[in-house]
Amino acid sequence: MTEPLDWTLIEAAAAIRAGDISSAELTDLAIQRAEALQTKLNSFIALEPEAARSAAKAADEALASGRAVGPIHGVPLSHKDMYDRAGAITGCGSKIRAHEVAAHTATVIERLDEAGQIHLGRLNMSEFAMGPTGFNAHHGRASNPLDPARIAGGSSSGSGSAVGSNTIFAALGSDTGGSIRLPAACCGVVGLKPTQGRVSRFGAMPLSHSLDCVGPLARSVADAKLITRIIAGPDGRDGACLDAPPIGAEAPAVADLTVAIPDAGFFVEDLAPEVAAFLADAEAILTGAGARIVRPKLPPLDDVIELTNLIAMTEAGAIHLDTMRERPEDYGEQVRARLIQGLGVPAPVYLRAMQIKGVFLRRFLAEVLTECDAVVTPTMPMLPPVSAEVEVGASEAMTRVMVSISKFTRVFSFLGLPTLAVPGPATTGGLKPSVQIAAAPFREDITCTLGEAIERGL
Amino acid sequence: MTEPLDWTLIEAAAAIRAGDISSAELTDLAIQRAEALQTKLNSFIALEPEAARSAAKAADEALASGRAVGPIHGVPLSHKDMYDRAGAITGCGSKIRAHEVAAHTATVIERLDEAGQIHLGRLNMSEFAMGPTGFNAHHGRASNPLDPARIAGGSSSGSGSAVGSNTIFAALGSDTGGSIRLPAACCGVVGLKPTQGRVSRFGAMPLSHSLDCVGPLARSVADAKLITRIIAGPDGRDGACLDAPPIGAEAPAVADLTVAIPDAGFFVEDLAPEVAAFLADAEAILTGAGARIVRPKLPPLDDVIELTNLIAMTEAGAIHLDTMRERPEDYGEQVRARLIQGLGVPAPVYLRAMQIKGVFLRRFLAEVLTECDAVVTPTMPMLPPVSAEVEVGASEAMTRVMVSISKFTRVFSFLGLPTLAVPGPATTGGLKPSVQIAAAPFREDITCTLGEAIERGL
Repeated sequence: MTEPLDWTLIEAAAAIRAGDISSAELTDLAIQRAEALQTKLNSFIALEPEAARSAAKAADEALASGRAVGPIHGVPLSHKDMYDRAGAITGCGSKIRAHEVAAHTATVIERLDEAGQIHLGRLNMSEFAMGPTGFNAHHGRASNPLDPARIAGGSSSGSGSAVGSNTIFAALGSDTGGSIRLPAACCGVVGLKPTQGRVSRFGAMPLSHSLDCVGPLARSVADAKLITRIIAGPDGRDGACLDAPPIGAEAPAVADLTVAIPDAGFFVEDLAPEVAAFLADAEAILTGAGARIVRPKLPPLDDVIELTNLIAMTEAGAIHLDTMRERPEDYGEQVRARLIQGLGVPAPVYLRAMQIKGVFLRRFLAEVLTECDAVVTPTMPMLPPVSAEVEVGASEAMTRVMVSISKFTRVFSFLGLPTLAVPGPATTGGLKPSVQIAAAPFREDITCTLGEAIERGL
Repeated sequence: MTEPLDWTLIEAAAAIRAGDISSAELTDLAIQRAEALQTKLNSFIALEPEAARSAAKAADEALASGRAVGPIHGVPLSHKDMYDRAGAITGCGSKIRAHEVAAHTATVIERLDEAGQIHLGRLNMSEFAMGPTGFNAHHGRASNPLDPARIAGGSSSGSGSAVGSNTIFAALGSDTGGSIRLPAACCGVVGLKPTQGRVSRFGAMPLSHSLDCVGPLARSVADAKLITRIIAGPDGRDGACLDAPPIGAEAPAVADLTVAIPDAGFFVEDLAPEVAAFLADAEAILTGAGARIVRPKLPPLDDVIELTNLIAMTEAGAIHLDTMRERPEDYGEQVRARLIQGLGVPAPVYLRAMQIKGVFLRRFLAEVLTECDAVVTPTMPMLPPVSAEVEVGASEAMTRVMVSISKFTRVFSFLGLPTLAVPGPATTGGLKPSVQIAAAPFREDITCTLGEAIERGL
């Protein structure tokens, strides 16, 4: 059998339930690895070994006493530093809220607690979840476990880094323009951005209410689906969280699905050869599994990149209006510059962007997602860049990378569609390319069925 | 028996069903009065007597043939010039859309057609529904039937004028900051602004998507309730139209209701003596009918006036962005000035106003509407002013009047609550003061029960 820390979340939970390992042992292994890697990867903003050990002990006692346990009972997880737990700090990767204690517990945290998670600490992230590389002026960036010289991606950088280094078994991220899928792609793990409105955001730090989605980074598609099923569903404390049918256990078979894979235009321009190769492999795997492949006729997508940014930065500007007035110097330079941009957007321009968003979704549903069940594209055009290349003010190449890194993920943020990032096999220097699979609203099941087919085919 | 044109809508419909009068006769009487009064009142932008006469004839034939007929079968109505009918012009009281032909029929028009209305023509309104006095630079203002030297109120000026002159039996208006209740108050009729989300806005000209409500002006509370029940309810073509329980036929008895009537602060400052007297009369009537009267502790309301304006003008700015760029000269001066104001609002300020709106509603529900079932206040602080006093650029007094005329109505627009305006008895020069009755979301039934009690008590 593989090393316990290399198990999937589902395997780890089964092993604990079967008594093959105790939660205390597994948690201890995770703490040891977290401590050993912290200097190199900087995945954690705060590690809480004492609390985790005593929670693991209690989990073992609960199991021994024969009490009913949840589906992830005793398994160590950690989350992006933006989910409230009553009485504990939620720092949002910032200086401004570094010592802020939460009054309530986020709905997603409550649900994961009930399901049995052991919480190891708070994970690194881009300041206030702004920034696709994981750069953080206050806490330093989290590094890529596949190659520490490279970015872990952002904004859920610590989630990517800690799951990718097999330190924890899954982590919540949050995705506004790609913040779950980009670190998943960079760190070679699975990331699932659920449908807009699928998961409660009560107690989660808001960045942009029109775009923010809460979802997992995990080691397998099945693990990501399990976490999403635990956290999803209506919540009286979040009116934007919809009462949609739960994510089905049984999706249509791959052989019954039509999958659109672009072979020209927006999604295949300037791809790194490793990324293009993996997209072709994924197509071959899905064809082999019986899926029908079509070439989609996509609407023009170039404007979507800027529209998504405009909406996100405007809504972020509204949230940060007071602190930007009172203590602008406490923001990192990069974050402050983007917030200033948002503060200056005229409201009718913002409202027009929101209107286009609605029209664009209706057209996409009517014109693209009637011809196919899912769209598969690369998650990022390139492999994760070297950190030094994308540091603030580093080079002209940096600007190019910064713009293009999130261009593919933003499309499905703008559309609010469920989108799953799935890693490919290791290529140059151990880095892994990634594809993203998007489907109609609330059809996470279809993205997962296709993602599992790709996993199996590799 | 009174003259047919002086019947209520419910009486007219019953008379047609009973064969006491034909739809053709009643429609003919309405057309004659409309034509006779048009020069004096300017209620109509377009009168369509031919179409109305042939529809009335068809209605009589349907009745004679024994077919099932709707609750307002054969009764002549007319609506504000902003509800689409496929193939016909919807001019929005503007020059810009004066000749624009609609492709679809508004849901509310479809429902009134099914219920049996005869449509007499399009009613005057403030340009694009902007302006509380009914001033219209292109079509001239509609005049007050109680005193033609005075304003009919706006923006549903023609609706107030045509219902108040007993020309038609009811009319749709639309209310963003008071545009149903103000002309109702000016013209001595009943006006009901339903709960935000109660009535479909598909095919209705948008002014401000966060505040716009579609509702009736009518001759009695029962008539207004009937029209609202006909037009209300979910509509697949308007996602913002909620699937709320229908307006109940049986509200709680007056004796079981607690009614808050402010006797100090915002709602009673600078009241005209006639308005103050009617508010006191309404209180005495409700007390006599067994209601428990309390003094509400209201949150500070002064900022609400400007916040409502900011939201409305910002959203209007987004809608008019292109035409304001392409043909600004085709707007009236007053409307153009307000749109320019909206175009300059920074988006984070708009979003902050929207956030305050949500918080304000939650607080109002928790702190005020738990202590009482309804709040009764004056609809306007004054009797309808003389038109010349509130013409553009007329006087300093004008600015004062313009700001204060809609201050009471805007509060319940901001809150999105159902609010019914009920006229009092004729006072100075035949003018009638008015009170408005607001209740919790989707409790139009409570506002109507109290409104009917006041009607009966007069």
